[in-house]
Amino acid sequence: MSEPAIGTSAPKRGRPGYDREQVLAVAVKVFNEHGYDATSVADLTAALGLTKSALYHHFESKSAILELALDDALDGLEQVVDDAEARHPLASDRLRAIVRGAVRVLTEKLPAVTLLLRVRGNGEVEAAALRRRRTFDQRVTTIVAEAQREGLIRDDVDAAVATRLIFGMINSVVEWYRPGGPVDPAELGEDILRVSLDGLQSR
Amino acid sequence: MSEPAIGTSAPKRGRPGYDREQVLAVAVKVFNEHGYDATSVADLTAALGLTKSALYHHFESKSAILELALDDALDGLEQVVDDAEARHPLASDRLRAIVRGAVRVLTEKLPAVTLLLRVRGNGEVEAAALRRRRTFDQRVTTIVAEAQREGLIRDDVDAAVATRLIFGMINSVVEWYRPGGPVDPAELGEDILRVSLDGLQSR
Repeated sequence: MSEPAIGTSAPKRGRPGYDREQVLAVAVKVFNEHGYDATSVADLTAALGLTKSALYHHFESKSAILELALDDALDGLEQVVDDAEARHPLASDRLRAIVRGAVRVLTEKLPAVTLLLRVRGNGEVEAAALRRRRTFDQRVTTIVAEAQREGLIRDDVDAAVATRLIFGMINSVVEWYRPGGPVDPAELGEDILRVSLDGLQSR
Repeated sequence: MSEPAIGTSAPKRGRPGYDREQVLAVAVKVFNEHGYDATSVADLTAALGLTKSALYHHFESKSAILELALDDALDGLEQVVDDAEARHPLASDRLRAIVRGAVRVLTEKLPAVTLLLRVRGNGEVEAAALRRRRTFDQRVTTIVAEAQREGLIRDDVDAAVATRLIFGMINSVVEWYRPGGPVDPAELGEDILRVSLDGLQSR
Protein backbone atom coordinates (compact mmCIF):
# COMPACT_ATOMS: atom_id res chain seq x y z
CA MET A 1 0.00 0.00 0.00
CA SER A 2 2.79 2.45 -0.87
CA GLU A 3 2.44 5.74 -2.66
CA PRO A 4 4.12 5.99 -6.04
CA ALA A 5 7.68 7.25 -5.74
CA ILE A 6 8.06 10.97 -6.40
CA GLY A 7 9.73 11.58 -9.74
CA THR A 8 9.13 8.14 -11.26
CA SER A 9 5.63 9.01 -12.40
CA ALA A 10 4.10 12.40 -13.00
CA PRO A 11 0.57 12.35 -11.64
CA LYS A 12 0.41 16.13 -11.44
CA ARG A 13 1.37 16.65 -15.08
CA GLY A 14 -1.87 15.63 -16.74
CA ARG A 15 -1.65 11.87 -17.29
CA PRO A 16 -2.90 9.59 -14.55
CA GLY A 17 0.24 8.05 -13.02
CA TYR A 18 -1.62 5.70 -10.71
CA ASP A 19 -3.10 2.28 -11.18
CA ARG A 20 -6.35 1.32 -9.49
CA GLU A 21 -4.58 -0.30 -6.52
CA GLN A 22 -2.56 2.85 -5.84
CA VAL A 23 -5.61 5.11 -6.08
CA LEU A 24 -7.29 2.83 -3.55
CA ALA A 25 -4.30 2.98 -1.18
CA VAL A 26 -4.08 6.79 -1.24
CA ALA A 27 -7.87 7.20 -0.89
CA VAL A 28 -8.02 4.85 2.12
CA LYS A 29 -5.18 6.81 3.74
CA VAL A 30 -7.10 10.08 3.28
CA PHE A 31 -10.33 8.48 4.61
CA ASN A 32 -8.46 7.28 7.71
CA GLU A 33 -6.89 10.67 8.34
CA HIS A 34 -10.00 12.81 7.95
CA GLY A 35 -12.93 10.42 8.17
CA TYR A 36 -14.84 9.05 5.20
CA ASP A 37 -17.81 11.42 5.58
CA ALA A 38 -15.55 14.46 5.87
CA THR A 39 -13.56 13.55 2.73
CA SER A 40 -14.82 15.05 -0.53
CA VAL A 41 -14.00 13.87 -4.05
CA ALA A 42 -12.04 17.14 -4.31
CA ASP A 43 -9.95 16.10 -1.26
CA LEU A 44 -9.18 12.81 -3.02
CA THR A 45 -8.20 14.39 -6.32
CA ALA A 46 -6.01 16.89 -4.43
CA ALA A 47 -4.24 14.10 -2.49
CA LEU A 48 -3.78 12.07 -5.68
CA GLY A 49 -2.86 14.98 -7.93
CA LEU A 50 -5.47 13.66 -10.38
CA THR A 51 -8.30 15.36 -12.18
CA LYS A 52 -11.83 14.31 -11.26
CA SER A 53 -12.24 12.54 -14.60
CA ALA A 54 -8.98 10.62 -14.09
CA LEU A 55 -10.23 9.52 -10.67
CA TYR A 56 -13.58 8.46 -12.15
CA HIS A 57 -11.62 6.47 -14.75
CA HIS A 58 -10.60 4.20 -11.83
CA PHE A 59 -13.70 4.29 -9.59
CA GLU A 60 -17.26 5.30 -10.32
CA SER A 61 -17.75 6.99 -6.92
CA LYS A 62 -16.29 7.70 -3.49
CA SER A 63 -18.47 4.92 -2.05
CA ALA A 64 -17.14 2.42 -4.64
CA ILE A 65 -13.65 3.01 -3.19
CA LEU A 66 -14.99 2.56 0.34
CA GLU A 67 -16.79 -0.65 -0.66
CA LEU A 68 -13.67 -2.17 -2.22
CA ALA A 69 -11.54 -1.39 0.84
CA LEU A 70 -14.13 -2.71 3.31
CA ASP A 71 -14.63 -5.88 1.22
CA ASP A 72 -10.88 -6.45 1.21
CA ALA A 73 -10.70 -6.23 5.01
CA LEU A 74 -13.83 -8.38 5.53
CA ASP A 75 -12.73 -11.02 2.97
CA GLY A 76 -9.43 -11.39 4.85
CA LEU A 77 -11.09 -11.75 8.25
CA GLU A 78 -13.77 -14.18 7.01
CA GLN A 79 -11.09 -16.31 5.34
CA VAL A 80 -9.42 -16.69 8.74
CA VAL A 81 -12.60 -18.17 10.23
CA ASP A 82 -13.18 -20.38 7.16
CA ASP A 83 -9.62 -21.75 7.41
CA ALA A 84 -9.91 -22.34 11.17
CA GLU A 85 -13.19 -24.22 10.70
CA ALA A 86 -11.69 -26.36 7.91
CA ARG A 87 -8.55 -27.25 9.86
CA HIS A 88 -9.29 -27.61 13.57
CA PRO A 89 -11.83 -30.06 15.00
CA LEU A 90 -11.46 -28.60 18.54
CA ALA A 91 -13.19 -25.25 19.04
CA SER A 92 -10.44 -24.00 21.35
CA ASP A 93 -7.89 -24.68 18.57
CA ARG A 94 -10.14 -22.81 16.13
CA LEU A 95 -10.22 -19.88 18.55
CA ARG A 96 -6.41 -19.78 18.79
CA ALA A 97 -6.12 -19.92 14.98
CA ILE A 98 -8.66 -17.09 14.65
CA VAL A 99 -6.79 -14.84 17.11
CA ARG A 100 -3.47 -15.42 15.31
CA GLY A 101 -5.07 -15.05 11.87
CA ALA A 102 -7.04 -11.91 12.72
CA VAL A 103 -3.89 -10.20 14.05
CA ARG A 104 -2.10 -11.19 10.83
CA VAL A 105 -4.88 -9.73 8.64
CA LEU A 106 -4.93 -6.54 10.73
CA THR A 107 -1.21 -5.97 10.42
CA GLU A 108 -1.12 -6.92 6.71
CA LYS A 109 -4.19 -4.92 5.70
CA LEU A 110 -3.83 -2.19 8.33
CA PRO A 111 -5.35 0.75 6.37
CA ALA A 112 -8.38 -1.23 5.13
CA VAL A 113 -9.09 -2.78 8.55
CA THR A 114 -8.66 0.63 10.23
CA LEU A 115 -11.31 2.00 7.87
CA LEU A 116 -13.59 -0.97 8.59
CA LEU A 117 -13.35 -0.47 12.35
CA ARG A 118 -14.36 3.19 12.03
CA VAL A 119 -17.48 2.48 9.99
CA ARG A 120 -20.55 3.88 11.72
CA GLY A 121 -23.26 2.53 9.41
CA ASN A 122 -24.03 5.77 7.54
CA GLY A 123 -25.15 4.81 4.01
CA GLU A 124 -25.73 1.42 2.36
CA VAL A 125 -22.05 0.46 1.89
CA GLU A 126 -21.31 1.02 5.61
CA ALA A 127 -24.54 -0.72 6.66
CA ALA A 128 -23.62 -3.79 4.57
CA ALA A 129 -20.13 -3.86 6.12
CA LEU A 130 -21.62 -3.68 9.62
CA ARG A 131 -23.91 -6.63 8.78
CA ARG A 132 -20.88 -8.66 7.69
CA ARG A 133 -19.03 -7.67 10.88
CA ARG A 134 -22.00 -8.82 12.98
CA THR A 135 -22.11 -12.18 11.16
CA PHE A 136 -18.36 -12.55 11.73
CA ASP A 137 -18.79 -11.79 15.46
CA GLN A 138 -21.60 -14.35 15.69
CA ARG A 139 -19.46 -17.04 14.06
CA VAL A 140 -16.65 -16.40 16.56
CA THR A 141 -19.10 -16.27 19.49
CA THR A 142 -20.42 -19.70 18.44
CA ILE A 143 -16.86 -21.05 18.49
CA VAL A 144 -16.18 -19.52 21.94
CA ALA A 145 -19.42 -21.06 23.26
CA GLU A 146 -18.40 -24.45 21.84
CA ALA A 147 -14.94 -24.13 23.45
CA GLN A 148 -16.73 -23.43 26.75
CA ARG A 149 -18.77 -26.66 26.32
CA GLU A 150 -15.52 -28.52 25.60
CA GLY A 151 -14.40 -27.29 29.03
CA LEU A 152 -11.28 -25.62 27.66
CA ILE A 153 -12.55 -22.04 27.97
CA ARG A 154 -14.00 -20.78 31.28
CA ASP A 155 -17.74 -20.42 31.20
CA ASP A 156 -18.17 -17.74 33.86
CA VAL A 157 -17.71 -15.04 31.19
CA ASP A 158 -20.54 -14.83 28.63
CA ALA A 159 -19.37 -16.10 25.21
CA ALA A 160 -20.52 -12.94 23.39
CA VAL A 161 -18.81 -10.67 25.94
CA ALA A 162 -15.63 -12.80 25.80
CA THR A 163 -15.62 -12.56 21.98
CA ARG A 164 -16.05 -8.80 22.12
CA LEU A 165 -13.23 -8.43 24.65
CA ILE A 166 -10.84 -10.62 22.62
CA PHE A 167 -11.61 -8.60 19.50
CA GLY A 168 -11.39 -5.41 21.52
CA MET A 169 -7.77 -6.34 22.14
CA ILE A 170 -7.13 -7.43 18.56
CA ASN A 171 -8.83 -4.42 16.98
CA SER A 172 -7.02 -1.94 19.24
CA VAL A 173 -3.87 -2.92 17.38
CA VAL A 174 -4.89 -0.63 14.49
CA GLU A 175 -4.60 2.35 16.86
CA TRP A 176 -0.91 1.92 17.61
CA TYR A 177 0.74 -0.82 15.50
CA ARG A 178 2.98 0.58 12.77
CA PRO A 179 4.51 -1.69 10.10
CA GLY A 180 8.29 -1.80 10.47
CA GLY A 181 8.06 -0.53 14.06
CA PRO A 182 9.49 -2.25 17.16
CA VAL A 183 6.55 -4.69 17.59
CA ASP A 184 6.78 -7.91 15.55
CA PRO A 185 3.32 -8.80 14.16
CA ALA A 186 3.67 -12.57 14.79
CA GLU A 187 4.86 -11.94 18.35
CA LEU A 188 1.89 -9.59 18.81
CA GLY A 189 -0.49 -12.44 17.95
CA GLU A 190 1.20 -14.61 20.59
CA ASP A 191 1.01 -11.78 23.15
CA ILE A 192 -2.73 -11.44 22.55
CA LEU A 193 -3.15 -15.20 23.00
CA ARG A 194 -1.09 -15.06 26.21
CA VAL A 195 -3.15 -12.20 27.66
CA SER A 196 -6.57 -13.43 26.55
CA LEU A 197 -6.15 -17.15 27.30
CA ASP A 198 -3.50 -17.35 30.05
CA GLY A 199 -3.99 -13.90 31.61
CA LEU A 200 -1.42 -11.39 32.78
CA GLN A 201 -1.23 -12.66 36.32
CA SER A 202 1.86 -14.57 37.35
CA ARG A 203 1.24 -18.12 38.58
CA MET B 1 -26.95 13.19 29.10
CA SER B 2 -30.66 13.17 28.19
CA GLU B 3 -32.39 15.31 25.61
CA PRO B 4 -35.01 17.70 26.96
CA ALA B 5 -38.46 16.11 27.12
CA ILE B 6 -40.66 16.93 24.17
CA GLY B 7 -43.36 19.38 25.15
CA THR B 8 -41.77 20.72 28.31
CA SER B 9 -39.61 23.21 26.46
CA ALA B 10 -39.98 24.65 23.00
CA PRO B 11 -36.54 24.82 21.42
CA LYS B 12 -37.96 25.05 17.91
CA ARG B 13 -40.23 27.99 18.71
CA GLY B 14 -37.66 30.75 18.93
CA ARG B 15 -36.39 30.77 22.52
CA PRO B 16 -33.45 28.55 23.37
CA GLY B 17 -34.91 25.68 25.43
CA TYR B 18 -31.56 24.07 26.21
CA ASP B 19 -29.06 24.70 28.92
CA ARG B 20 -25.33 24.41 28.22
CA GLU B 21 -25.17 20.80 29.44
CA GLN B 22 -27.98 19.74 27.09
CA VAL B 23 -26.43 21.50 24.09
CA LEU B 24 -23.20 19.65 24.87
CA ALA B 25 -25.00 16.28 25.06
CA VAL B 26 -26.80 16.72 21.74
CA ALA B 27 -23.66 18.04 20.00
CA VAL B 28 -21.54 15.10 21.22
CA LYS B 29 -24.23 12.69 19.95
CA VAL B 30 -24.13 14.33 16.49
CA PHE B 31 -20.29 14.28 16.49
CA ASN B 32 -20.32 10.56 17.32
CA GLU B 33 -22.86 9.76 14.61
CA HIS B 34 -21.26 11.67 11.75
CA GLY B 35 -17.71 12.40 12.87
CA TYR B 36 -16.51 15.71 14.29
CA ASP B 37 -14.88 16.91 11.06
CA ALA B 38 -17.97 16.08 9.00
CA THR B 39 -20.31 17.95 11.38
CA SER B 40 -20.97 21.59 10.51
CA VAL B 41 -22.34 24.27 12.83
CA ALA B 42 -25.46 24.10 10.62
CA ASP B 43 -25.77 20.36 11.41
CA LEU B 44 -25.61 21.20 15.12
CA THR B 45 -28.21 23.97 14.94
CA ALA B 46 -30.48 21.66 12.90
CA ALA B 47 -30.15 18.82 15.45
CA LEU B 48 -30.74 21.24 18.33
CA GLY B 49 -33.50 23.25 16.67
CA LEU B 50 -31.56 26.36 17.68
CA THR B 51 -30.50 29.40 15.72
CA LYS B 52 -26.78 29.92 15.21
CA SER B 53 -26.80 32.87 17.60
CA ALA B 54 -28.57 30.79 20.27
CA LEU B 55 -25.89 28.10 19.88
CA TYR B 56 -23.13 30.72 20.13
CA HIS B 57 -24.81 31.99 23.31
CA HIS B 58 -23.75 28.64 24.89
CA PHE B 59 -20.44 27.95 23.12
CA GLU B 60 -18.09 30.21 21.20
CA SER B 61 -17.26 27.57 18.56
CA LYS B 62 -17.63 23.94 17.48
CA SER B 63 -14.14 23.23 18.82
CA ALA B 64 -15.09 24.68 22.24
CA ILE B 65 -17.79 22.00 22.49
CA LEU B 66 -15.30 19.32 21.45
CA GLU B 67 -12.77 20.57 24.01
CA LEU B 68 -15.27 20.49 26.87
CA ALA B 69 -16.39 16.94 26.01
CA LEU B 70 -12.82 15.63 25.64
CA ASP B 71 -11.76 17.32 28.91
CA ASP B 72 -14.70 15.71 30.69
CA ALA B 73 -13.67 12.23 29.49
CA LEU B 74 -9.97 12.81 30.22
CA ASP B 75 -10.63 14.32 33.67
CA GLY B 76 -12.63 11.20 34.59
CA LEU B 77 -9.94 8.80 33.41
CA GLU B 78 -7.08 10.72 35.04
CA GLN B 79 -9.01 10.84 38.32
CA VAL B 80 -9.13 7.04 38.27
CA VAL B 81 -5.33 6.82 38.12
CA ASP B 82 -4.95 9.57 40.76
CA ASP B 83 -7.27 7.68 43.12
CA ALA B 84 -5.53 4.34 42.49
CA GLU B 85 -2.13 5.91 43.22
CA ALA B 86 -3.43 7.51 46.41
CA ARG B 87 -5.07 4.34 47.75
CA HIS B 88 -3.05 1.28 46.78
CA PRO B 89 0.59 0.73 47.74
CA LEU B 90 0.86 -2.41 45.56
CA ALA B 91 1.09 -1.71 41.83
CA SER B 92 -1.00 -4.80 40.98
CA ASP B 93 -3.79 -3.44 43.21
CA ARG B 94 -3.49 -0.06 41.47
CA LEU B 95 -3.85 -1.85 38.13
CA ARG B 96 -7.03 -3.64 39.24
CA ALA B 97 -8.48 -0.36 40.53
CA ILE B 98 -7.63 1.35 37.23
CA VAL B 99 -9.34 -1.36 35.14
CA ARG B 100 -12.50 -1.19 37.28
CA GLY B 101 -12.45 2.61 37.38
CA ALA B 102 -11.81 3.07 33.66
CA VAL B 103 -14.74 0.77 32.80
CA ARG B 104 -16.92 2.77 35.20
CA VAL B 105 -15.90 6.10 33.58
CA LEU B 106 -16.50 4.64 30.09
CA THR B 107 -19.98 3.44 30.91
CA GLU B 108 -20.91 6.61 32.84
CA LYS B 109 -19.49 9.06 30.30
CA LEU B 110 -20.06 6.90 27.23
CA PRO B 111 -20.65 9.65 24.62
CA ALA B 112 -17.68 11.79 25.73
CA VAL B 113 -15.30 8.81 25.92
CA THR B 114 -16.52 7.54 22.52
CA LEU B 115 -15.65 10.95 21.08
CA LEU B 116 -12.24 10.88 22.78
CA LEU B 117 -11.40 7.47 21.35
CA ARG B 118 -12.18 8.63 17.80
CA VAL B 119 -9.93 11.69 17.96
CA ARG B 120 -7.34 11.60 15.18
CA GLY B 121 -5.27 14.63 16.16
CA ASN B 122 -6.58 17.04 13.52
CA GLY B 123 -6.40 20.56 14.99
CA GLU B 124 -5.07 21.86 18.30
CA VAL B 125 -7.91 20.61 20.53
CA GLU B 126 -7.54 17.04 19.24
CA ALA B 127 -3.73 17.21 19.43
CA ALA B 128 -3.93 18.34 23.09
CA ALA B 129 -6.33 15.48 23.88
CA LEU B 130 -3.96 12.97 22.24
CA ARG B 131 -1.09 14.34 24.36
CA ARG B 132 -3.16 13.80 27.53
CA ARG B 133 -4.06 10.26 26.36
CA ARG B 134 -0.39 9.48 25.81
CA THR B 135 0.51 10.73 29.30
CA PHE B 136 -2.31 8.61 30.71
CA ASP B 137 -1.01 5.53 28.84
CA GLN B 138 2.50 6.18 30.15
CA ARG B 139 1.28 6.43 33.75
CA VAL B 140 -0.54 3.08 33.41
CA THR B 141 2.46 1.48 31.64
CA THR B 142 4.66 2.54 34.58
CA ILE B 143 2.23 0.84 36.97
CA VAL B 144 2.16 -2.36 34.86
CA ALA B 145 6.00 -2.40 34.79
CA GLU B 146 6.07 -1.95 38.57
CA ALA B 147 3.58 -4.83 38.99
CA GLN B 148 5.90 -6.96 36.85
CA ARG B 149 8.81 -6.11 39.18
CA GLU B 150 6.61 -7.04 42.16
CA GLY B 151 6.30 -10.43 40.45
CA LEU B 152 2.51 -10.32 40.39
CA ILE B 153 2.19 -9.62 36.64
CA ARG B 154 3.98 -11.84 34.10
CA ASP B 155 6.97 -10.14 32.55
CA ASP B 156 7.08 -12.04 29.22
CA VAL B 157 4.69 -9.48 27.71
CA ASP B 158 6.12 -5.97 27.29
CA ALA B 159 4.52 -3.55 29.79
CA ALA B 160 3.58 -1.03 27.07
CA VAL B 161 2.02 -3.76 24.90
CA ALA B 162 0.17 -5.21 27.91
CA THR B 163 -1.20 -1.76 28.77
CA ARG B 164 -2.37 -1.24 25.20
CA LEU B 165 -4.06 -4.64 25.12
CA ILE B 166 -5.84 -4.09 28.45
CA PHE B 167 -7.07 -0.70 27.25
CA GLY B 168 -7.93 -2.23 23.89
CA MET B 169 -10.39 -4.42 25.75
CA ILE B 170 -11.66 -1.59 27.96
CA ASN B 171 -12.01 0.91 25.11
CA SER B 172 -13.82 -1.57 22.85
CA VAL B 173 -16.69 -1.32 25.31
CA VAL B 174 -17.75 1.99 23.71
CA GLU B 175 -18.45 0.10 20.48
CA TRP B 176 -21.14 -2.17 21.90
CA TYR B 177 -22.08 -1.31 25.49
CA ARG B 178 -25.48 0.37 25.75
CA PRO B 179 -26.72 1.86 29.07
CA GLY B 180 -29.74 -0.05 30.32
CA GLY B 181 -28.88 -3.05 28.12
CA PRO B 182 -28.32 -6.63 29.28
CA VAL B 183 -24.68 -6.09 30.35
CA ASP B 184 -24.22 -4.76 33.89
CA PRO B 185 -21.36 -2.18 33.93
CA ALA B 186 -19.88 -3.36 37.26
CA GLU B 187 -19.96 -6.99 36.07
CA LEU B 188 -18.28 -5.88 32.85
CA GLY B 189 -15.37 -4.45 34.87
CA GLU B 190 -15.01 -7.79 36.64
CA ASP B 191 -15.17 -9.67 33.30
CA ILE B 192 -12.36 -7.52 31.91
CA LEU B 193 -10.29 -8.22 35.04
CA ARG B 194 -11.00 -11.96 34.68
CA VAL B 195 -9.97 -12.04 31.03
CA SER B 196 -6.93 -9.76 31.30
CA LEU B 197 -5.50 -11.08 34.58
CA ASP B 198 -6.71 -14.70 34.86
CA GLY B 199 -7.21 -15.47 31.16
CA LEU B 200 -10.08 -17.28 29.43
CA GLN B 201 -8.51 -20.70 29.64
CA SER B 202 -9.97 -23.16 32.13
CA ARG B 203 -7.57 -24.45 34.78
